[in-house]
Amino acid sequence: MITIRTTQIDNRDPDVIDLGIGQPGFDLLPLRIMRRAAAVRMAEGDATFLNYGYEQGDGRFRVALARYLNEQTGVEVDAGQIMATAGASQALDMICTYFTEPGDTVFVERPSYFLALRIFADHKLNVVEIATDENGLVLEALEEALAQHKPTFLYTIPTFQNPSGVTLPAERRQRLVELSAEHDFLIVADEAYHLLDYSACPPPPMSSFDDGARHSGRVLSVGSFSKILAPGLRLGWVQAHPSLLETLTSSGLLDSGGGLAPFTSNLVRVVLDRGWQEEHRHFLRQTYQRRATALAEALHTHLGDRVTFHMPQGGFFIWVALPQGMDAAQLLPHAHQQKTSFHPGAKFGSHPSLSRYLRLSFAFYNEEKLEEGVRRLARVVGIQ
Amino acid sequence: MITIRTTQIDNRDPDVIDLGIGQPGFDLLPLRIMRRAAAVRMAEGDATFLNYGYEQGDGRFRVALARYLNEQTGVEVDAGQIMATAGASQALDMICTYFTEPGDTVFVERPSYFLALRIFADHKLNVVEIATDENGLVLEALEEALAQHKPTFLYTIPTFQNPSGVTLPAERRQRLVELSAEHDFLIVADEAYHLLDYSACPPPPMSSFDDGARHSGRVLSVGSFSKILAPGLRLGWVQAHPSLLETLTSSGLLDSGGGLAPFTSNLVRVVLDRGWQEEHRHFLRQTYQRRATALAEALHTHLGDRVTFHMPQGGFFIWVALPQGMDAAQLLPHAHQQKTSFHPGAKFGSHPSLSRYLRLSFAFYNEEKLEEGVRRLARVVGIQ
Repeated sequence: MITIRTTQIDNRDPDVIDLGIGQPGFDLLPLRIMRRAAAVRMAEGDATFLNYGYEQGDGRFRVALARYLNEQTGVEVDAGQIMATAGASQALDMICTYFTEPGDTVFVERPSYFLALRIFADHKLNVVEIATDENGLVLEALEEALAQHKPTFLYTIPTFQNPSGVTLPAERRQRLVELSAEHDFLIVADEAYHLLDYSACPPPPMSSFDDGARHSGRVLSVGSFSKILAPGLRLGWVQAHPSLLETLTSSGLLDSGGGLAPFTSNLVRVVLDRGWQEEHRHFLRQTYQRRATALAEALHTHLGDRVTFHMPQGGFFIWVALPQGMDAAQLLPHAHQQKTSFHPGAKFGSHPSLSRYLRLSFAFYNEEKLEEGVRRLARVVGIQ
Repeated sequence: MITIRTTQIDNRDPDVIDLGIGQPGFDLLPLRIMRRAAAVRMAEGDATFLNYGYEQGDGRFRVALARYLNEQTGVEVDAGQIMATAGASQALDMICTYFTEPGDTVFVERPSYFLALRIFADHKLNVVEIATDENGLVLEALEEALAQHKPTFLYTIPTFQNPSGVTLPAERRQRLVELSAEHDFLIVADEAYHLLDYSACPPPPMSSFDDGARHSGRVLSVGSFSKILAPGLRLGWVQAHPSLLETLTSSGLLDSGGGLAPFTSNLVRVVLDRGWQEEHRHFLRQTYQRRATALAEALHTHLGDRVTFHMPQGGFFIWVALPQGMDAAQLLPHAHQQKTSFHPGAKFGSHPSLSRYLRLSFAFYNEEKLEEGVRRLARVVGIQ
């Protein structure tokens, strides 16, 4: 007898409100859109997307995506600079395989996305953490680290960071790209949250600061449909100078299997072309903004000055600081007793200063559940 | 201006008959089936498959696949021993990432699938070739190699091999699994062609010779929907003892991205449950058998005793030997002048004995085109 599981979070106690879950709520999944997209694409009659796909990704999909990114970010995007991937995680894994060797040093932000750290560990990379402030990566800290290390790449989440929610300003992006040229390292920019802005437009994606000519193409911007459409599609993209994409598209993996997402990218091309992606993103931004506000208000109401945080302007997360000296990980068993949960700061890097933080996601639950989750959390924070 | 490419083989001269193409013909792609499957699955109303999927793969898909494999191979298959992947190539890449380190030695058959060799090279593995005969891997040669090397895994294509078409008999399979236990190496069995038998049922898949208890689970059987349904889905599976699957399902890649194919596996679950997979496989086997016969007859008619080959009993390929001393690679420019092509034997391994072979596929073209391709080839073979 095996358990029939569908999602990553099946089989949980339905009474638990786990504020650690960094996934879209089940109520936000675009079934109607995908049904219509599938029907439209299948009715086109052209079956070629069922065969091995072009290594860089379906041409019509890449043109549609380039147009969409151009419209939404204001930055000119060329379909020749886009490669389709099977999601952002697959892109990160592939970048590790094809750009690094075990033992290589890579830089990450402190804090950084804990599951990217797991992928780097799987590839046996030596991870060095760089300090961040309320505007993201601290470039002075980066320069100090560059004096001691020669990283293969810097992994950054420049916009609505996971977990901290902060966004790197344009001037820092510009300077970061200059540093990558001066010190010859790649920038792997995880921009999964870029299109989920609620109150302020972020600066352009990292890849748009890489003019190729002067800086010879050192930025790989990783994008994804997981946060703006549906994680189950396993569809993302890498935007980079063609010289960088070439390393990926000429791999044995793509030579053998062809493009990474012929079927799903053809359906999503319809979603883009019909305007349904923009419609859905609009809906998500409104919903997530309401949820972010509800979570922040609940924190103010129930935890008051026991916690501090910056109101995020996009993304999925609020990065909450407990009073100095408190350790979020020690609260976790108590939280579980209260039928709530979160990700403790220590998951997001090795530095002791992270231990008083906790990452709360406002993406998965509605406003009512979020407030109830915080109410439970407040009982726990009161304990210490 | 970028070129809008969809498939791996767009933009080719339509007059060329390239017998190297190891893909299903465009006339064989199951558009009608996928249209119906999408409509059925979308109408079920359950949107959970659009969220992050269970790491091992959707439970209902794995149950449906286990039942199908059981029905078609006669071997009992447990859904707990199946993990969904994004195609066989992705599975091979992932096995390399999670079971090997650069510099590790792996064994392959001589000849072997040239693009698997590329994936192993990308992972910086040291490849040692083991001799094969008309019944596949020669176990005496394997034992000799085991006296000198300690491989992490042996990569084998046990059934309707690519490129040679040969099949490893049951006794050799049994002994191979015993050797893997005695010498502590893994067996990575690429069984992409297992379900495409035309005239003789193959022995059970490699994983069924691995009883787990006695041999502690050393076989990873890699399967795929690319050859029996549609490559563009990028959907495959690994069948192995749960202790082996655990290494893959607990990876950072799956922890971050979730299951590798929630969307496509849900559609294919419908294809399996409705009997459409078996219907399509029946159609493919009849079609490919006709094409294999046509290719073989054309070789007899137009090349006579200039070539020798074994009639394949399944799969995609005929492995043709030219007379001793001839080099297939040298014929290639002449073949291109005649608007035909093939894969020369030297691609499939490093041993000089391979150079007189050529791999011809009967999957992509209909009977008429196959005969015309061989007619062109005959002009070329006559040249030397």
